[in-house]
Amino acid sequence: MNDASHPSKPAFPQPVSGTVVPRFGDVATFMRMPLFRDPADVEIGMVGVPWDGGTTNRPGARHGPRQMRDLSTMMRRVHHVTGVAPYELAKCGDLGDAPVNPASLDDSLERIETFFTKIHEAGAVPLSAGGDHLITLPIMRAIRKGLPPLGMVHFDAHSDTWDTYFGGYKYTHGTPFRRAVEEGLADPKRMVQIGVRGSMYSADEKDWAESVGIRIVHIEEFFRLGPDAVMAEARQIVGDGPVYVSFDVDGLDPVYAPGTGTPEIGGFSTAEAQRMIRALDGLDLVGGDVVEVAPPFDPSGNTALVGATMMFEILCALAPAVHRRKNRMRRL
Amino acid sequence: MNDASHPSKPAFPQPVSGTVVPRFGDVATFMRMPLFRDPADVEIGMVGVPWDGGTTNRPGARHGPRQMRDLSTMMRRVHHVTGVAPYELAKCGDLGDAPVNPASLDDSLERIETFFTKIHEAGAVPLSAGGDHLITLPIMRAIRKGLPPLGMVHFDAHSDTWDTYFGGYKYTHGTPFRRAVEEGLADPKRMVQIGVRGSMYSADEKDWAESVGIRIVHIEEFFRLGPDAVMAEARQIVGDGPVYVSFDVDGLDPVYAPGTGTPEIGGFSTAEAQRMIRALDGLDLVGGDVVEVAPPFDPSGNTALVGATMMFEILCALAPAVHRRKNRMRRL
Amino acid sequence: MNDASHPSKPAFPQPVSGTVVPRFGDVATFMRMPLFRDPADVEIGMVGVPWDGGTTNRPGARHGPRQMRDLSTMMRRVHHVTGVAPYELAKCGDLGDAPVNPASLDDSLERIETFFTKIHEAGAVPLSAGGDHLITLPIMRAIRKGLPPLGMVHFDAHSDTWDTYFGGYKYTHGTPFRRAVEEGLADPKRMVQIGVRGSMYSADEKDWAESVGIRIVHIEEFFRLGPDAVMAEARQIVGDGPVYVSFDVDGLDPVYAPGTGTPEIGGFSTAEAQRMIRALDGLDLVGGDVVEVAPPFDPSGNTALVGATMMFEILCALAPAVHRRKNRMRRL
Amino acid sequence: MNDASHPSKPAFPQPVSGTVVPRFGDVATFMRMPLFRDPADVEIGMVGVPWDGGTTNRPGARHGPRQMRDLSTMMRRVHHVTGVAPYELAKCGDLGDAPVNPASLDDSLERIETFFTKIHEAGAVPLSAGGDHLITLPIMRAIRKGLPPLGMVHFDAHSDTWDTYFGGYKYTHGTPFRRAVEEGLADPKRMVQIGVRGSMYSADEKDWAESVGIRIVHIEEFFRLGPDAVMAEARQIVGDGPVYVSFDVDGLDPVYAPGTGTPEIGGFSTAEAQRMIRALDGLDLVGGDVVEVAPPFDPSGNTALVGATMMFEILCALAPAVHRRKNRMRRL
Amino acid sequence: MNDASHPSKPAFPQPVSGTVVPRFGDVATFMRMPLFRDPADVEIGMVGVPWDGGTTNRPGARHGPRQMRDLSTMMRRVHHVTGVAPYELAKCGDLGDAPVNPASLDDSLERIETFFTKIHEAGAVPLSAGGDHLITLPIMRAIRKGLPPLGMVHFDAHSDTWDTYFGGYKYTHGTPFRRAVEEGLADPKRMVQIGVRGSMYSADEKDWAESVGIRIVHIEEFFRLGPDAVMAEARQIVGDGPVYVSFDVDGLDPVYAPGTGTPEIGGFSTAEAQRMIRALDGLDLVGGDVVEVAPPFDPSGNTALVGATMMFEILCALAPAVHRRKNRMRRL
Amino acid sequence: MNDASHPSKPAFPQPVSGTVVPRFGDVATFMRMPLFRDPADVEIGMVGVPWDGGTTNRPGARHGPRQMRDLSTMMRRVHHVTGVAPYELAKCGDLGDAPVNPASLDDSLERIETFFTKIHEAGAVPLSAGGDHLITLPIMRAIRKGLPPLGMVHFDAHSDTWDTYFGGYKYTHGTPFRRAVEEGLADPKRMVQIGVRGSMYSADEKDWAESVGIRIVHIEEFFRLGPDAVMAEARQIVGDGPVYVSFDVDGLDPVYAPGTGTPEIGGFSTAEAQRMIRALDGLDLVGGDVVEVAPPFDPSGNTALVGATMMFEILCALAPAVHRRKNRMRRL
Repeated sequence: MNDASHPSKPAFPQPVSGTVVPRFGDVATFMRMPLFRDPADVEIGMVGVPWDGGTTNRPGARHGPRQMRDLSTMMRRVHHVTGVAPYELAKCGDLGDAPVNPASLDDSLERIETFFTKIHEAGAVPLSAGGDHLITLPIMRAIRKGLPPLGMVHFDAHSDTWDTYFGGYKYTHGTPFRRAVEEGLADPKRMVQIGVRGSMYSADEKDWAESVGIRIVHIEEFFRLGPDAVMAEARQIVGDGPVYVSFDVDGLDPVYAPGTGTPEIGGFSTAEAQRMIRALDGLDLVGGDVVEVAPPFDPSGNTALVGATMMFEILCALAPAVHRRKNRMRRL
Repeated sequence: MNDASHPSKPAFPQPVSGTVVPRFGDVATFMRMPLFRDPADVEIGMVGVPWDGGTTNRPGARHGPRQMRDLSTMMRRVHHVTGVAPYELAKCGDLGDAPVNPASLDDSLERIETFFTKIHEAGAVPLSAGGDHLITLPIMRAIRKGLPPLGMVHFDAHSDTWDTYFGGYKYTHGTPFRRAVEEGLADPKRMVQIGVRGSMYSADEKDWAESVGIRIVHIEEFFRLGPDAVMAEARQIVGDGPVYVSFDVDGLDPVYAPGTGTPEIGGFSTAEAQRMIRALDGLDLVGGDVVEVAPPFDPSGNTALVGATMMFEILCALAPAVHRRKNRMRRL
Repeated sequence: MNDASHPSKPAFPQPVSGTVVPRFGDVATFMRMPLFRDPADVEIGMVGVPWDGGTTNRPGARHGPRQMRDLSTMMRRVHHVTGVAPYELAKCGDLGDAPVNPASLDDSLERIETFFTKIHEAGAVPLSAGGDHLITLPIMRAIRKGLPPLGMVHFDAHSDTWDTYFGGYKYTHGTPFRRAVEEGLADPKRMVQIGVRGSMYSADEKDWAESVGIRIVHIEEFFRLGPDAVMAEARQIVGDGPVYVSFDVDGLDPVYAPGTGTPEIGGFSTAEAQRMIRALDGLDLVGGDVVEVAPPFDPSGNTALVGATMMFEILCALAPAVHRRKNRMRRL
Repeated sequence: MNDASHPSKPAFPQPVSGTVVPRFGDVATFMRMPLFRDPADVEIGMVGVPWDGGTTNRPGARHGPRQMRDLSTMMRRVHHVTGVAPYELAKCGDLGDAPVNPASLDDSLERIETFFTKIHEAGAVPLSAGGDHLITLPIMRAIRKGLPPLGMVHFDAHSDTWDTYFGGYKYTHGTPFRRAVEEGLADPKRMVQIGVRGSMYSADEKDWAESVGIRIVHIEEFFRLGPDAVMAEARQIVGDGPVYVSFDVDGLDPVYAPGTGTPEIGGFSTAEAQRMIRALDGLDLVGGDVVEVAPPFDPSGNTALVGATMMFEILCALAPAVHRRKNRMRRL
Repeated sequence: MNDASHPSKPAFPQPVSGTVVPRFGDVATFMRMPLFRDPADVEIGMVGVPWDGGTTNRPGARHGPRQMRDLSTMMRRVHHVTGVAPYELAKCGDLGDAPVNPASLDDSLERIETFFTKIHEAGAVPLSAGGDHLITLPIMRAIRKGLPPLGMVHFDAHSDTWDTYFGGYKYTHGTPFRRAVEEGLADPKRMVQIGVRGSMYSADEKDWAESVGIRIVHIEEFFRLGPDAVMAEARQIVGDGPVYVSFDVDGLDPVYAPGTGTPEIGGFSTAEAQRMIRALDGLDLVGGDVVEVAPPFDPSGNTALVGATMMFEILCALAPAVHRRKNRMRRL
Repeated sequence: MNDASHPSKPAFPQPVSGTVVPRFGDVATFMRMPLFRDPADVEIGMVGVPWDGGTTNRPGARHGPRQMRDLSTMMRRVHHVTGVAPYELAKCGDLGDAPVNPASLDDSLERIETFFTKIHEAGAVPLSAGGDHLITLPIMRAIRKGLPPLGMVHFDAHSDTWDTYFGGYKYTHGTPFRRAVEEGLADPKRMVQIGVRGSMYSADEKDWAESVGIRIVHIEEFFRLGPDAVMAEARQIVGDGPVYVSFDVDGLDPVYAPGTGTPEIGGFSTAEAQRMIRALDGLDLVGGDVVEVAPPFDPSGNTALVGATMMFEILCALAPAVHRRKNRMRRL
């Protein structure tokens, strides 16, 4: 990374080192990075979306971003397996939180979309910390502007493709990807959902998602195939086009992420998740998120540590993608 | 209570005794009372309203009714100070939970109002367990039908008479009593708020409530006057007309009720609260609630025990009021 | 399941859906099913046994049934792997809790046996939530009446076949299966215990169980063989006769079930447990239980969620067995 | 204390100082005192009674002695108000735990009585850490041998003078003092109970205790009179005869002692309790206990700190009483 | 405050309002104020000192500043009793954390002193969040430069005037005020310590502090005199000279502040503490701190809320003092 | 083990059985073994080192030894897989805690070394409970006297071979093995570190350890090879010479050991750890430790149970080594 082809590197901010300022010290920002208020100042913006108005069961994900910032101070600079040094590849920063309105679901969806539209228009790529999974919908509405429908690699215990809840209500954290497909934000043929499980309301519940072409890897199939084979197929499915990665921590077994709204026992492990995220390497990632971290349900804080580490893992796949796009642009 | 004038008494259901079925045993209903689905079956209906969609800070009050049912099994039959035996004075039961919609604030307000309207039309009186404080608004909309604006005895750290939040939004748990006054549900001249405290956004913040005639007893005044003098004045303020009592557990010091959404240090004690509720004796109570019990923020469960005990204390003031009205009716 | 041969189906009660009433709403019954007080009203009765008087270490399992009811509201209607819809195959309901006596071990054993005898005599099959493991003894005394000694599939970290404790005392949660064999309730040749581990008091500690023919699959053997091979052998061992399944949550690694009285590190996972329970399909199950959920030792509540999910998994093996027996009866 | 009349003083063991060994260091014994196995080695023996077999509600007091030992390392040597230095007045030590049998209530009562009889016969005085309140019964059976019926100062939210539970069972933590009076262990005319409160099963519930002459100071009367007046009366009631002091931590408000089996809101404070115990000075104390500390219900550990501090407060009243009796003996 | 004499007011930053950005939103700074890195940018600098290297018992106060920042977002702008609007009287901001060295006590003391010296030299006044109580020593070393020995109002369960620990070690959180007096940083004749209590190592333990003239108000005296009389005397003691206020949360009863290193039962309440801090009004305050908030020992977070509220209370006494000094300077 | 060649066996103390004294009973010592103050009384001494002064992140490991003693009462006498009965092979006991000085890192290192030197000089072998990982350095300084540089099997998420922290400070829990190699205490060619993972400060971070010959098995390699192959290699590396085993609980995935100072997700399981420790059988072990158990970060206590079980596993490899050395000596 020290070569002449990367002259702008020294200008990129780096995280504060824990051997200089102890990890528990100072104001907590994502990954101990500087706080910027103008998205034009970064290439990758880490954003909190403190909102759980789409939650149908246990609330608390609104407190996720702050605790993920706190625990993200455990992250260091270089990925110990891939060797990726994300802060040298792209200018990263904390962009603060998207504005939300706890008193209105509709208004919150608009505020979030507006905030991410500004990021998108400034040319930056977002890595978000939820919040419940409904936040992914306004994020996708914002960032896919000017792009074809996105591919998705989606880690979750639930497909989140229900139609309506509570008598016709179309927006909850159980519906975002039905809406995303309906609105043309995501291309169902390029979507893969990994880790889905749990008892169902009816036997035909899986039909819609699979009928539109979404590939669902149920947890039993995941255990049979293993993470490498699953990701090999996932890479084929999403292909070369722009891809969004969404990591719902309830895809993990609840022992790894008890602090979440709709836990479902029998999930994958953090080690398996890390292995899968590392397999995103080389995809044309245009954004990502880690959602459903609900601190009130995990007094140990481990869920937020898991969430922050998954953000770092995604960042180590996202920064090379941003860097590649910069290089392509430069060459043109 | 064993006299001939009370012939219907044996027909009233009584709580299961803890010397027969241990307190931790069996399905948890409010006060170990039978569950009824038809409000016509009771004179006093205990209702859960599992909804926190009006919460602007820490959510979780949606889990309040269930844990209050669990802890209410610690309650017995007879009040140890007043000697009131509420289940002999009025037919009481658990009416289950009001329907709510986590995905829509507006729809939830309607569903709650509709549910309580049925209770009101059946001639029953509700004692509710929240949920956040916004639930009191639809309850009052339902039960004051056919009555003059209600008087209120309101225990709280906050006046809950803000106008709007987040840019013009009129419904949060910080606004219900502004709306109640505006809609004529409550008579501000007959309202008293006890325990208000905490830093303010602006110096004129208290103005609206006091300008319309609400009597606010700030906590400092409460400590100076003591619970007896405060309640003597409160009884004068609400007078002989119909009165609703609303107990927000954040009126208590947070050590007694850590499991709440907007804790404010420096409040009154449970012993003081009990003393105040006992002073409601003789008022023409038409309903009551205990709100803002948010179990995720209290791993000890003590907040729910406090909430359940306050429900029992209110019940011991409500049941005599119901009994008096029955007697009046009978005499007519 | 929609065929004409199952005409009584519409009459069976179904769980309340979480898309209609949110999961946190209303009085908590097992699986959100109706509460019946007469066992003649059901074919499969879910029963709480809130008793831990046999516990030699950390108590608290008496609180298990109530929290398992609470968390069981996360369960839905159809098994996502097997497609079994248990509530369509058998009439299920919550039968409340068995009576217990915290002040007397002997009296509790009698009360529990009497309660389950009524269920058995009414022709219903019990699925129980403990309580400590000693409860399985009076349950087996009740339900094996009129049957040959039962086969058992028993998941546990401990063999629970000690002879006596504390100087000659024969009844603790460490002894039930010694007693069950001695009393002829269970056929040791048709018993398999899976997951046994942990340091021992003496080298010959395993001798009794194995000397009478019980097959013990220690955890090390389990890890070597895998769940499929273990269950293939287990099915052979229990054969075609009536079988009882008992799931002690301490068979799981404590990370999945910290809320238990005698945790032993190094156990199997929930995913492995689910795989094993699913392999019970086709056996002639006559009852089952999930025991040793002790909520005070798990502030997260995950243990109770695990327990409730295991109850659902067992139900999905038990309901087809009940259905098959009904069909056999009908044909006769 | 440094006078020649107290020559044996240097021989008495003293607690380890926290300025030498940090408070969190080393094996935890009561008050950091040496462990003795022979009661003849001490004048005051601190004893754990790890048993909760009499508990009718939430168990866990069996874990009380160990956590009280742990937290008692916060205690120092000299009382900061009275100046009493208990370890200079009497030879104190930790006597370990009384033997108990979790599998048998009757056998446990016998084992506990036998253990305390040995202490009593060795001439030592016990200061015990429960365990539930039923342990006080076998302790009193042991230590009042050779003495007239004891006076009692009893701090509690409950009178613990119920007759039977669960259909005729005479021994639970709700009955010990009915039994103690019936057996002539305690003189009801010399018994005072302070802090009693909470709803009742029936209006005549208080009758038995008061009919036999026990003075009950309900919490409302306590708040009216204040700790000094209450204790002045208590001292008159118990008079000059031998007195046992029993401190149930549920007499305190649950905020001070959430870790207990039957919390009842609205109790006295620790400061008030300390003031009351200090007023025991000069009474002829023959033993004491602190009971109902149930650590599983208090993750903060504060209840055990409160319990350990109350033990120290009682010790500072008990040691002078022991010292006075020694002096009286010496003079004879 | 709106008068012409205060022209610079609009330029002062104000906290973000919770009716605009919800309280749980965005990066957490003290009181939701801007973060400045140059002390010359503020008149009052809020500083974290994340260090507990002087702790002799339970560590964790190093995590205090971050959680106090988190909970301080509950604070609003105007004091509800005094009407003080601190952010209009002085330019306030978050200055981040002082540098510390977990691996060296001596180096940490130097780093902290250096950091506060810069604040002092820039003309700013610090309001600090600890950290254990030893941090007050280097703070005082820094800020009293150019001033006479400071007066102190010190709230604490302990006098913190021990000489040495562990065989001659002079620096722990039990010794700072002995050192401060020895070094001439504080004038013992102008020091008052309120709330001291707890058992002692020796009867003459209090002698040093009182022998040099420090006024110790033990908790028993506090309860007897009440907060108003105590503070009237305190104001006389400190007089007109410069005063530092130090609030150790263990002065409070542990129910208000369980998250602390050396809890001592029987303390004052938060309401009493607030009343006392408000009585600092008019003193010539030159700095203050809130120390010993140790989040790991309080899963509820209430201790940090208490700590943050006490910071706000102190700020409302400190800002007028700063404003008065500005006015005096301006007039010269 | 019952043969004549082992005549001293009956003299060895054995743990108290949980079928005699319940597990929660009595003073807690390591493994329920007697407490000795003279190391000459034992062959294997279990020692607590309650010190976390080297901790750079979350403190609390000073509380580890006491809680590990508490939970170690769950251990029994005989290893269920290997059949090893350690207390018959070597005379074991609890030696209490090493002296430490919370106020001085340097002094603590000296005190610890002195204490272990006494153990070593008495001919005993230590099995220690930390404390943070820096304690291993003074232990090794003490016990390798008279021996060649030790081999090490080291389980950890971190290599702990950093050079300095916070500007030149050489002693933290991130540096002990750099120091151990520099001082010739350990032979880097005979050191293996298993489970290392986590993001890095710089890409060349691993260089030093590997450059001096330490074999690092990163977690990814561990998952690929499996525990058996890893340990086969580890045995080859350490060879026949004296070996020290150090088990940092953060080598485990944090779900197994949340109570630790520097958790790193994605580690090995307890079952895998047990399998690896059992593979130490036959090595010439001269001591071992389990470190970084920080109870304040694990309210469930499971981390301490894991730690205590790992101590028992190590003991079952250490006791045979001690026994073999005794036999060799005897034969000479």
